[in-house]
Amino acid sequence: MNNTVYVGNKGVMNYVLAVITQFNTENAEKVKIKARGRAISRAVDVEEMVKNRFLPNIKVEEIKLGTDQVQNEEGKTVNISTIEIVLSK
Amino acid sequence: MNNTVYVGNKGVMNYVLAVITQFNTENAEKVKIKARGRAISRAVDVEEMVKNRFLPNIKVEEIKLGTDQVQNEEGKTVNISTIEIVLSK
Repeated sequence: MNNTVYVGNKGVMNYVLAVITQFNTENAEKVKIKARGRAISRAVDVEEMVKNRFLPNIKVEEIKLGTDQVQNEEGKTVNISTIEIVLSK
Repeated sequence: MNNTVYVGNKGVMNYVLAVITQFNTENAEKVKIKARGRAISRAVDVEEMVKNRFLPNIKVEEIKLGTDQVQNEEGKTVNISTIEIVLSK
């Protein structure tokens, strides 16, 4: 399954459209929404908007929380929280 | 069950300590972490820090995403995403 939408710092609608395209044009059975750090809130916005406004029959199949270790600008390893929301038809 | 920690704009450790206190001092079986909007990312930080650093035996029992309708400063109704993370012993 490679239908993953990575949520970053763009406007919410960019990612909402990406998810809808995966389901409708690419005919995906499942779409994963992934985000890290502050973008986690936006990932939840994307999921809620897809489900409440555009694709009411989609289900939230799984939500996983986690921690990634990344190097910051000073080369220090820091922990950053992650979310993965799996939507399915 | 009234062991709910509402995550807002304070530092993560405030909420981490609140969750730990519920489990250890108040002897709670379950603790709910709730947040809205931008604080959602911080709620995930709280859960990850409690689980990875302080209480490794705690389990994430349930994660719910939702939408609240709130009035903004101009009296307009706007949608705001919510998260609820239930931790259990």
